Amino acid sequence: MDATIREGEKAVDPPRNFDASLVFIGTIHTPWHERGDCPRQGDEAGPDCRIDVDPHWREALEGIEAYSRLQVLYWMNEARRDLVLQWPRGAEKPCGTFALRSPVRPNPIASSIVLLVRREGTSLIVRGLDCRDGTPLLDLKPHRG
Amino acid sequence: MDATIREGEKAVDPPRNFDASLVFIGTIHTPWHERGDCPRQGDEAGPDCRIDVDPHWREALEGIEAYSRLQVLYWMNEARRDLVLQWPRGAEKPCGTFALRSPVRPNPIASSIVLLVRREGTSLIVRGLDCRDGTPLLDLKPHRG
Repeated sequence: MDATIREGEKAVDPPRNFDASLVFIGTIHTPWHERGDCPRQGDEAGPDCRIDVDPHWREALEGIEAYSRLQVLYWMNEARRDLVLQWPRGAEKPCGTFALRSPVRPNPIASSIVLLVRREGTSLIVRGLDCRDGTPLLDLKPHRG
Repeated sequence: MDATIREGEKAVDPPRNFDASLVFIGTIHTPWHERGDCPRQGDEAGPDCRIDVDPHWREALEGIEAYSRLQVLYWMNEARRDLVLQWPRGAEKPCGTFALRSPVRPNPIASSIVLLVRREGTSLIVRGLDCRDGTPLLDLKPHRG
């Protein structure tokens, strides 16, 4: 059994075939260089972070300053993808992956709502992220409601 | 110029190389068979929809009934991915893709918050979706807040 699995956790066969492909559209810069340094959850009172959007997509940012809150989708590129049961620290028993927001999941896409502080060209200064420095960006959307 | 682009809209070169891969983990069933039939936005007072999770991931649903609201990520598999400026119907002027929640975007991942009505084995009955019948499922997460 895989040594990185804790008691009560369970892995299934990882997917052999993939169905769709993603392009990284930028990079997220945060003060946290190791996974262990990251806060457990983003905080709008936390430090400024910078989202650098690839200049190829520059015009897609047109009008984004009208929104104070954005939804950021990013790729948790260091997570394994085959665990169905996980035992989070502090939990009483193992829990299904889809009942957790853990980075470990079949498609490691994270979703955060952030406060847009300001735009600087193709960079956005935001607050409320909790990911590592260098995390690949997948999407930006205006936050509804 | 591509005939499917409206005046004021702009496409860039589509990505030639991809950076990450997705696996479809299930299928979403809704009453809407054509894109034109879909509501503009999900409504928790709307009809029941059914999310069929692939039985391979069955144990990952463990404990999900504890949450009344879930975040659903799905793949908008019929959308083009190269538009940076779009002119939505009724808008005064074109708008950047990242300032819209349009399905047309570099990575066509949709995110919806739904009401969990009940679980039936590896299926979830939910309300609040607005996608077409047959839409591929990418992820389920408990909704925070």
